[in-house]
Amino acid sequence: VAPRGRRADARRNHDLLVAAARRVFDEQGVDAPLDEIARRAGVGNATLYRHFPTRRDLVVEVYADEVDALCADGTARLADPDPLDGLFAWLAAFVAHVATRRHLALSIPDGPTSDRDLLFDRWHAAMHETAAALVDRARETGTLRADVTATDLVTMGHGIGLATADPATAGRLLGLVRHGTS
Amino acid sequence: VAPRGRRADARRNHDLLVAAARRVFDEQGVDAPLDEIARRAGVGNATLYRHFPTRRDLVVEVYADEVDALCADGTARLADPDPLDGLFAWLAAFVAHVATRRHLALSIPDGPTSDRDLLFDRWHAAMHETAAALVDRARETGTLRADVTATDLVTMGHGIGLATADPATAGRLLGLVRHGTS
Repeated sequence: VAPRGRRADARRNHDLLVAAARRVFDEQGVDAPLDEIARRAGVGNATLYRHFPTRRDLVVEVYADEVDALCADGTARLADPDPLDGLFAWLAAFVAHVATRRHLALSIPDGPTSDRDLLFDRWHAAMHETAAALVDRARETGTLRADVTATDLVTMGHGIGLATADPATAGRLLGLVRHGTS
Repeated sequence: VAPRGRRADARRNHDLLVAAARRVFDEQGVDAPLDEIARRAGVGNATLYRHFPTRRDLVVEVYADEVDALCADGTARLADPDPLDGLFAWLAAFVAHVATRRHLALSIPDGPTSDRDLLFDRWHAAMHETAAALVDRARETGTLRADVTATDLVTMGHGIGLATADPATAGRLLGLVRHGTS
């Protein structure tokens, strides 16, 4: 196999492993057997361990991938014709992320170089930037009150995701935040 | 000492111990030395152990006392001239309760008769009834939208209390819920 082919294979195996790990962690929790993940990805255990020497490496990659997807979703929603619709659609995705994936981030042990806080800071910053872009757009068009900040909306979304894992309830609570109570 | 006087003494010691325990748990955490609590209450250790044979008994009493105070606060706020002001003032107290006292409830181990869930159910029911009375009043006067439920507002308050321990942030987030974002 030529170097280019080997790199493409490695990339494909990496992506298959991350996708399989996300599914298996969702179904069986973050302590699910790694063998099961390799099996679902259709690769051998040796391939899994070559890509992800520790369970921590795999969890970090799955969570980073989720954050990337969430940020890409926010960027796509900058094209929503109604800026407030775009902002609240993204907030719903963020609430679901907190409710369903937060345990992955919390399960990450601190690494040999104490990089856990650095990872968390980077992920928080990426999500905050995504929220801020949507908030800025909604403010500029006058559909969002000028005193509503991205930080407060992210904190609120975090709280809603902690308080409920039910999408219907989360939707109603975001509706309260959007429309108020009177 | 006559029986009446002994009962009054016992009641006073009980109340002094609960007040001291609340302060010491706030300052030093729920694993604070019980000796320190007796000292602050101005009673001997034997008196503490007579009233509260285990740390669990004392934590349950402190938390139950907090829930009672929160419910009494809600009842008092039913007299607020503006029903929506009364409701949101109580929600602010509820959010502070979640942020500062939740760890007490979580520290309560299940008892010999598996009564922990029963305690939690009773406390949740009391807080929910308090919220419902304030919500009903605000709905009847037309200051609260008819589709806003006590359950959703309690869930929201719970989420805000989980997401932030800062009273100023909590106040801004409750303002979002009350007034909406546009």
